[in-house]
Amino acid sequence: MEKKVMQTYLYDFYGELLTEHQRGVYEDFVLNDLSLSEIAQEAGISRQGVHDLVRRCDKVLEGYEERLHLLERFLKIKEKIARIQALTGGCRADGAMAEIAAISNEILEEL
Amino acid sequence: MEKKVMQTYLYDFYGELLTEHQRGVYEDFVLNDLSLSEIAQEAGISRQGVHDLVRRCDKVLEGYEERLHLLERFLKIKEKIARIQALTGGCRADGAMAEIAAISNEILEEL
Repeated sequence: MEKKVMQTYLYDFYGELLTEHQRGVYEDFVLNDLSLSEIAQEAGISRQGVHDLVRRCDKVLEGYEERLHLLERFLKIKEKIARIQALTGGCRADGAMAEIAAISNEILEEL
Repeated sequence: MEKKVMQTYLYDFYGELLTEHQRGVYEDFVLNDLSLSEIAQEAGISRQGVHDLVRRCDKVLEGYEERLHLLERFLKIKEKIARIQALTGGCRADGAMAEIAAISNEILEEL
């Protein structure tokens, strides 16, 4: 998995366990894709300071995943739902299969 | 949801964030269904001490769920997978629908 995608997932799962300050900087870097220099200027800290803070957040978030494995559980489910959805063949017309397609779609949007 | 069921879920999700001592006592109470007195005797602390410790663990685990809502997300998915499974009608015989039944079964066993 690409690093930013994994960071986005980890943040989505455990971001609330970071401090508000950490969240602000991490969101700017990972979700809003700002550069270290842009964030440094905005937050009034050094570029190195931002870099260290992002690395520290990575470690904290990875640490929670290492202990809880909840993202891993989600991703396994997501894979299976994608398989279910593929099996419905995008069918929208007939009874049960159409409803299964709709529900699996809904789940994938939530995950 | 029944209290012990909820405690079991919360422990399954966030139990790794308790201390080893907390986990031991909480498991005895919630998973192994021992009485406060039995646990007190085994752990060499007072019955009231066990009671307070279990309550404290409840608060810690509930606190994580209040911040992360990961159990809530899981339970919503679980409900939808159960609906998918119901739609397959327990069918095991024909192609796509049979595979959907098998996969949804697998997911439900994991959740």
